[in-house]
Amino acid sequence: MKLKFWREVAIDIISDFETTIMPFFGNPDGGKLVKISPSGDETKLVDKLAEDLILSRITELGVNVVSEEVGVIDNESEYTVIVDPLDGSYNFIAGIPFFALSLAVFKKDKPIYAIIYEPMTERFFEGIPGEGAFLNGKRIKVRKTPDEKPSISFYSRGKGHEIVKHVKRTRTLGAIALELAYLAMGALDGVVDVRKYVRPTDIAAGTIIAKEAGALIKDSAGKDIDISFNATDRLDVIAVNSEELLKTILSLLE
Amino acid sequence: MKLKFWREVAIDIISDFETTIMPFFGNPDGGKLVKISPSGDETKLVDKLAEDLILSRITELGVNVVSEEVGVIDNESEYTVIVDPLDGSYNFIAGIPFFALSLAVFKKDKPIYAIIYEPMTERFFEGIPGEGAFLNGKRIKVRKTPDEKPSISFYSRGKGHEIVKHVKRTRTLGAIALELAYLAMGALDGVVDVRKYVRPTDIAAGTIIAKEAGALIKDSAGKDIDISFNATDRLDVIAVNSEELLKTILSLLE
Repeated sequence: MKLKFWREVAIDIISDFETTIMPFFGNPDGGKLVKISPSGDETKLVDKLAEDLILSRITELGVNVVSEEVGVIDNESEYTVIVDPLDGSYNFIAGIPFFALSLAVFKKDKPIYAIIYEPMTERFFEGIPGEGAFLNGKRIKVRKTPDEKPSISFYSRGKGHEIVKHVKRTRTLGAIALELAYLAMGALDGVVDVRKYVRPTDIAAGTIIAKEAGALIKDSAGKDIDISFNATDRLDVIAVNSEELLKTILSLLE
Repeated sequence: MKLKFWREVAIDIISDFETTIMPFFGNPDGGKLVKISPSGDETKLVDKLAEDLILSRITELGVNVVSEEVGVIDNESEYTVIVDPLDGSYNFIAGIPFFALSLAVFKKDKPIYAIIYEPMTERFFEGIPGEGAFLNGKRIKVRKTPDEKPSISFYSRGKGHEIVKHVKRTRTLGAIALELAYLAMGALDGVVDVRKYVRPTDIAAGTIIAKEAGALIKDSAGKDIDISFNATDRLDVIAVNSEELLKTILSLLE
């Protein structure tokens, strides 16, 4: 299955998303509880609709699927697709214009392609391991940390709260895949989530894209992150655009 | 000067904003430093352009103006317009789709009209003291705090960081006027900024709109907030949709 093939699958899914899911933006009905997901989170109506839409496109390919609401579908394929059908569903339901569709493709355990799509701005982020990161087809890179102190996305339940004193500004935008894509495009200098909360489905595509754009990505112990094929692991993620920022954050987390 | 008059002024400003400022969205050139504002902050090119555009519409009315970059223009009028030409300029320059235009009108010291405009969603929020809060002409109200714990916008430099453990989720979206409008439309349950940082220009319109939608608004000592006609005061703001949430936050700040 070539890259071109996966790009076409992604584009088909995006157009389905625009027609079927976007009409629910800001509509509280989208927030109706339909079930509890494998990781114990609430699955809202709009999460389910988005996942069903993607599964209908992917399952026919006979590949393995890891998705937030359904968990793991093992078709004994050499390809595995890790999906977050709606990254930022609270925002989407509440009408906060910050959410995305996130999808990563692996061949055996190697990532081969990743996309993040932001409907509000029609930004199509791609990560192609060994080739780079792209936004609407144009290459993107993390930025050099500006002279003023860095701007980071920061998620914490209290751990490492000192970090806010070492950065210029923090954002908690509510869609971590998209925030990782913003790191890749140079809108942020780091994405730090130390809640032991995000799942592989939340960060698979974002970490592939950010890494291809030059980001350094570790867990809160400074180790490489291993994206496992499940929807239940709870991870920390520290993704930054400089060694110096990585050192600062890791030292504040000790 | 009737309400209809001020609505027309606001709508003219919005259309200027769409044509002159929106093309700069996500364009780093908009971030060029042009001067230091009265409150000591950096005025970026896009801030200046947005302010010039608004001043060109308002100054001809002979009213007093309080605006972030220029400070106070006293024309000895009984009307004062408090403006934040671009609430969330970091987001705007970086391409993060969360920013707004914010304008509040006072007759002597009484607020008579307030608007917040969100270009990305074309949402036009209005607050008319004594009449209510409106979104694109439809009345809006704060929501009843959902059964799950509340979702709040939270800005802190370390103070009150325990608050994150008492809410379901926090957001730091980077445009406090717009976050106050989101409280008014029921997308958030509170907006808490305890950095002693926001200025009257940042929160004038948002507090008028949120209050008209039923929000409770205090400073971090639990006192009413007095919006003074200057662009330099540094304030705390706690705006919430329930007495219970207000008590919880104030107690955690003690």
